[in-house]
Amino acid sequence: MLADKNPQKTSLAELGEFGLIKHITQYFKLNNASSIKGVGDDAAVLDASKNQTLVTTDLLVEGVHFDLSYMPLKHLGYKAVMVNLSDVYAMNGEAEQITVSIAVSNRFPLEAIEELYAGIQLACDTYKIDLIGGDTTSSTKGILISVTAIGKAAKEDIVYRNTAKETDLIVVSGDLGAAYLGLQVLEREKQVFKVDPNNQPDLDNYTYLIERQLKPEARKDVAGLLKELKVKPTSMIDISDGLSSELFHICTQSKVGCKIYEDKLPLDPQVISTCEEFELDSTMVALSGGEDYELLFTVPIADFDAIKNNPNFSIVGHITAENQGLQLITRAGQEMELKAQGWNALKE
Amino acid sequence: MLADKNPQKTSLAELGEFGLIKHITQYFKLNNASSIKGVGDDAAVLDASKNQTLVTTDLLVEGVHFDLSYMPLKHLGYKAVMVNLSDVYAMNGEAEQITVSIAVSNRFPLEAIEELYAGIQLACDTYKIDLIGGDTTSSTKGILISVTAIGKAAKEDIVYRNTAKETDLIVVSGDLGAAYLGLQVLEREKQVFKVDPNNQPDLDNYTYLIERQLKPEARKDVAGLLKELKVKPTSMIDISDGLSSELFHICTQSKVGCKIYEDKLPLDPQVISTCEEFELDSTMVALSGGEDYELLFTVPIADFDAIKNNPNFSIVGHITAENQGLQLITRAGQEMELKAQGWNALKE
Repeated sequence: MLADKNPQKTSLAELGEFGLIKHITQYFKLNNASSIKGVGDDAAVLDASKNQTLVTTDLLVEGVHFDLSYMPLKHLGYKAVMVNLSDVYAMNGEAEQITVSIAVSNRFPLEAIEELYAGIQLACDTYKIDLIGGDTTSSTKGILISVTAIGKAAKEDIVYRNTAKETDLIVVSGDLGAAYLGLQVLEREKQVFKVDPNNQPDLDNYTYLIERQLKPEARKDVAGLLKELKVKPTSMIDISDGLSSELFHICTQSKVGCKIYEDKLPLDPQVISTCEEFELDSTMVALSGGEDYELLFTVPIADFDAIKNNPNFSIVGHITAENQGLQLITRAGQEMELKAQGWNALKE
Repeated sequence: MLADKNPQKTSLAELGEFGLIKHITQYFKLNNASSIKGVGDDAAVLDASKNQTLVTTDLLVEGVHFDLSYMPLKHLGYKAVMVNLSDVYAMNGEAEQITVSIAVSNRFPLEAIEELYAGIQLACDTYKIDLIGGDTTSSTKGILISVTAIGKAAKEDIVYRNTAKETDLIVVSGDLGAAYLGLQVLEREKQVFKVDPNNQPDLDNYTYLIERQLKPEARKDVAGLLKELKVKPTSMIDISDGLSSELFHICTQSKVGCKIYEDKLPLDPQVISTCEEFELDSTMVALSGGEDYELLFTVPIADFDAIKNNPNFSIVGHITAENQGLQLITRAGQEMELKAQGWNALKE
């Protein structure tokens, strides 16, 4: 196989800001009736009709939130959108628009930015999202992406964090800890590569973990699944910093406590086997791993039958009185205090 | 005078992301009825009622858009908000909410971030804006601010860029070129300071220029002024990259040409005197300087009498047929092609 060692590279300086914006946005089309005007004026124009508007924003920084040595730019673009859509779905809303601002150093050619936007476009197409604005500028170091997602929901459908009630069941979608382990696997491969660049990694045992880390999906489907089951959550949040940290938010804001059962935590078989290999405690990984982008929600105890056998959901505990605090009941039946040890972007 | 050489500094890592968010947002209150839920959930919740929603976003990067050696952090916070509000006003809308995301390196203590947010809060108080969300994270270098502004307008009141008509008058609010010259003065002082740190600069002759650079105001008042005059612009844009560049946007999108008269360009006396001192062409500065955050708009020729003697506005030219291109008529009566030489963040 012959690789082109000198692929064509187009400099961003040459193209200029307006040229870049035009180039990037030419393949994006508006899909939602609420997107009246997208890119191209001072501001985008939206029409929420009778709905309320949901707004959320996240900032991803190279060297803090991602490492381009194993995160392809296309995946980065996709993930940057998912992270934000997940927050809209966690309000029980429909995500419809995003703005994307990027700052890139001159080391990135146009082709790199195209890859990034190919991922953003794939996310937009898959999730029916309109790119309606943004900003492109240079940075003095690395790449940074700021995404704002906008969604809608009828006022009575919106689910907040501060409305969990005592005796409510605590439910999570999907499974936990895989994205964190995916990161550990990729970090290990990076170290191996540094020592021996010719080493061909065998990642067959970690495919699910790596996909969860590099190409997470936001749970757009949960709102529909719950509607079919005629269940309306009493509170909801997305799991971005780890289950413990999110439970802490729900309990603090709702002024309640909770009991979580270790043996109820949903773990993929690859999570269990890889935890053994890495000598990590799978419960800790599930509670504090982060980046799962699953939904954590509470439902009235009367909905137990509707939820219990649904393969999309796991009942992991229940809400208690505030003075009981946040407790983990271990497999051995022991009570432990649950600590919010989510990831802290300012510390690491 | 004794200065405290070791003022108390609180590290951001110590406080953590949630601690920082709580600390920063404690003094922000929601003012607008449309802000249903601000900071504290997965997404903010807004209610645009019968209006359409306007969304705009801008990214400011240290070393690209600002230099902290002469830009105080409080001013930076204020300006980051103004830049975005200006885009909402340029749609003839009312700005009501902002989200603010920042990435900061560890060299900034909490007190620096407090200064930045003090500026953001001053802007929010002055312009009646609600801070409804954002993100805080670390950066590997410098500081970066991403602001998204959200506003509203009745559908029929929104003014786009692509609706200027032949024979329309071209109007600008305020005066042009001062912010650019303010930057030149500050850059010169920085060089002087490098050579002689004890030099006390005398900036009395440049107060207006420096204020326009460090503490610009967005033209919230223009919509009201025009309503009083019973004038509705046919197109509008804010002047962030320089008059030429903005005229280029209006003409291209509206498929028209324009004639601008050099002797009609509104210049402050400090702009004229400082251009002489710096040996700069004041027309070039007014056309290409940028960062004025004034509004550029077109009105039907029938509104000439309503606009002509208003001290807030200057008629600088008129719209022509597309095939006439963009022309500058010099003081000597010469026709020159107008070039969009706005600032390019990717080039400089």
